[in-house]
Amino acid sequence: MSLLVVGSVAIDTLETPRGRAPDVLGGRAELEWFASRGIDLAGVEVKPGRSLRWTGRYHEDMNVRDTVSFEANVFAHFSPELPAAYRNTAFVFLANIAPTLQARVLDQVRAPRLVGADTMNLWIETTRADLDALLRRVPLLMINDEEARLLSGETNMVRAARRILAMGPESVMIKRGEYGALYFSGESVFAVPAYPLEEVFDPTGAGDAFAGGVMGYLASSGDTSPAGVRRAIVYGSVLASFTVEAFSLERLRTLTRDEIDRRYRQFISLTAFDVP
Amino acid sequence: MSLLVVGSVAIDTLETPRGRAPDVLGGRAELEWFASRGIDLAGVEVKPGRSLRWTGRYHEDMNVRDTVSFEANVFAHFSPELPAAYRNTAFVFLANIAPTLQARVLDQVRAPRLVGADTMNLWIETTRADLDALLRRVPLLMINDEEARLLSGETNMVRAARRILAMGPESVMIKRGEYGALYFSGESVFAVPAYPLEEVFDPTGAGDAFAGGVMGYLASSGDTSPAGVRRAIVYGSVLASFTVEAFSLERLRTLTRDEIDRRYRQFISLTAFDVP
Repeated sequence: MSLLVVGSVAIDTLETPRGRAPDVLGGRAELEWFASRGIDLAGVEVKPGRSLRWTGRYHEDMNVRDTVSFEANVFAHFSPELPAAYRNTAFVFLANIAPTLQARVLDQVRAPRLVGADTMNLWIETTRADLDALLRRVPLLMINDEEARLLSGETNMVRAARRILAMGPESVMIKRGEYGALYFSGESVFAVPAYPLEEVFDPTGAGDAFAGGVMGYLASSGDTSPAGVRRAIVYGSVLASFTVEAFSLERLRTLTRDEIDRRYRQFISLTAFDVP
Repeated sequence: MSLLVVGSVAIDTLETPRGRAPDVLGGRAELEWFASRGIDLAGVEVKPGRSLRWTGRYHEDMNVRDTVSFEANVFAHFSPELPAAYRNTAFVFLANIAPTLQARVLDQVRAPRLVGADTMNLWIETTRADLDALLRRVPLLMINDEEARLLSGETNMVRAARRILAMGPESVMIKRGEYGALYFSGESVFAVPAYPLEEVFDPTGAGDAFAGGVMGYLASSGDTSPAGVRRAIVYGSVLASFTVEAFSLERLRTLTRDEIDRRYRQFISLTAFDVP
């Protein structure tokens, strides 16, 4: 089954303890690469003017980053219009854009089997009513631990998750960077560690890669059973672990399905233990 | 097989965001409880004078704590002398005391099957040569992530572990509080999340409970195979999860083997996923 993703293509400037990468990603070259991977770009709007730009700086502890600058530019007046062919997509992922724009996408899809959404501190703090309205329509929320704390007002992740589930979503995945991910759905909890890497070059995009791996596995397998969702979370963790090995999307450019499946099996040996 | 533990019995005063507990643990009442659990106390030295005292304060983020005060008192001149019956013990755990004292215990045991040790920032910073000498004699080191960073000079846990293994230990377990634990042995890595708790009352002693669970399982099963060590780490995580549910050792007083085994099985459902 296919997957519809709504989000933005931005130009990032990244500073990490491992180096600086100005003006990565974004622009036509990126779109050509997407197309070469079999991604349908009919719905991508290219506007004249300056691109959306974000500059971020990571601390020595790369779990912490500061936004140095953010310019919406052409993105300021974006309003998603889905091509007719997109409206019956079974799996929908609403990447991190304003909740009103995420809602506008939902208004245009007919009967999606699963909708996942991301959000961030900016929308939690400045457009809370819009976000609350969106959450009532989103079965699967995928956010990081800081966002979960901010959204719920709870520091404890179990309580944070419980509060978030009371806001609408049936389940929530909480991304914790080098500490892996937690998944709460009803009374069920799943925890997966991050793949231990000797060198993390650039954590930017790890959360998106995680979401891509999760939604991509669910859409390609069509298996949304509890076991299928757990596998999807491990695929998300695999994709995130590759993304952070190089700046921007560099590592993903050369990544093969075989490498992905090999690392999935490494997650099994990383986490497996048996009943005594 | 039996397990020999060397350490101290202290009186703690604890302040956490959930409350304050003055003067917990320590003294004769504690020893009586230990005896009731089948612990051989022949080697415990009770000295006249004021007990070892530690006062700690936990932040809202309970992964962070400050030492408010530390008084060695009668412990200042402690030197461990093992009863003859202890010298053939197969499993030895050197809890967190000065490395010269830990070494003195090792000098007195004959041919232990496995020796595990803990240490802390104080010894890493002030008695490094003693600690380095000890590490060459300790096959299993169990420390927390901050201690691993301090000992290795590396912030990345994979690199930290590799450096520590080059110092002598065959394997290292790194405790990460609410983020679980990592285990490095040769090229093998095992990661286990912490049990997700809705309320953490007091993290004091979680590291010791983890070590107790690990060493206790290894000693009682006699299984030091890679699969046995993984099971031991899960038992350690189970014990740590119970310890933090109440102040001091309160939760451990009423804990049953059945509760422990039930939570072990919950760790399986918390972490299990299969091959697609």
